[in-house]
Amino acid sequence: MWRTLADKGFGGLTLRAVAATMGVSTGMLMHYFPTKHALVVHALDVLEKRTADRPRRDRPAEGLAALRATLLDILPLAPDDTARNRVWVSSWDLALADGDLGADQADRYARMRSAIRPHLEAARRLGELPGSADTDRADTDQLAATVVAFAHGLVVQALFDPERFPPAVQTSMVDGFLRSLTAERPTRAPDA
Amino acid sequence: MWRTLADKGFGGLTLRAVAATMGVSTGMLMHYFPTKHALVVHALDVLEKRTADRPRRDRPAEGLAALRATLLDILPLAPDDTARNRVWVSSWDLALADGDLGADQADRYARMRSAIRPHLEAARRLGELPGSADTDRADTDQLAATVVAFAHGLVVQALFDPERFPPAVQTSMVDGFLRSLTAERPTRAPDA
Repeated sequence: MWRTLADKGFGGLTLRAVAATMGVSTGMLMHYFPTKHALVVHALDVLEKRTADRPRRDRPAEGLAALRATLLDILPLAPDDTARNRVWVSSWDLALADGDLGADQADRYARMRSAIRPHLEAARRLGELPGSADTDRADTDQLAATVVAFAHGLVVQALFDPERFPPAVQTSMVDGFLRSLTAERPTRAPDA
Repeated sequence: MWRTLADKGFGGLTLRAVAATMGVSTGMLMHYFPTKHALVVHALDVLEKRTADRPRRDRPAEGLAALRATLLDILPLAPDDTARNRVWVSSWDLALADGDLGADQADRYARMRSAIRPHLEAARRLGELPGSADTDRADTDQLAATVVAFAHGLVVQALFDPERFPPAVQTSMVDGFLRSLTAERPTRAPDA
């Protein structure tokens, strides 16, 4: 099923296709997954588990170094990471159309932002980021959302154009993005 | 067809569903779209056209102000923008699984980056961004890809959690992101 998903996405996840890949009859498969919806829910469980269990980089330090490792763990830098990301991005078609699946995805984003926030707070304590550790909480929340946006937007571009975004380019983009966060900003920029 | 797509995504775009919404028979619809693939190709044409024809903000100036207007035109800030973005994000499931559709999406990203690059170059000429106008072209390309990543990553988060990302929050994130670009960066940051 994983291979079917990574190659064909959720549009290609049919009981027939999965049965064929597993070498069982559609009838046999339907014994376990009576509907397409049941198969999708199972596929998303597998995806969640694979994501949770993936090998991760060491978190060598607090602050920006830890944030950098967290971002590199998200990006499609190796074949397994690419397959997982393809399946996540593919799942958004169904998740946008289904209230429960959509709420799950919204929760997942909330957890990503929560995982990133402590690194930003630590970076402020360490003086790596401008602002003090007790800067407005809303500002840190917004910055965490910006970091997540950058990461997932890069995931999508890289999936569609792996030659343009090999691992070295993705990594360089992460470093450039983190560098832009470290700078002292003018209080009001030209956009104000 | 547009309503079906915006509500149900490409997973819900079946000949039967479209025929029902249009009040015609499936047989009649199949006269025009003999296959699901033909229907998808037509849907993507409609999406491309709606995106090209959408109303846009005035571009009041060169540089960051123009970049800001370009980004706000991308984001799901109003119902029509939201519907279009939902359909784009939904289309990635099919596009990742289909070589031709995937190549179209890669081209679309290349065009987005090309549309953003001149604003970055102008911002450098105007002194709004660090670096000179003749800074390494590769650096500007990478920055354009980072801007696109930020924008599309914000689109996806906002689609799944519109209450957390109302227009004011999305706009504030754009302004914060642009502000971070304006700052002089240390040549080598902690990530080096």
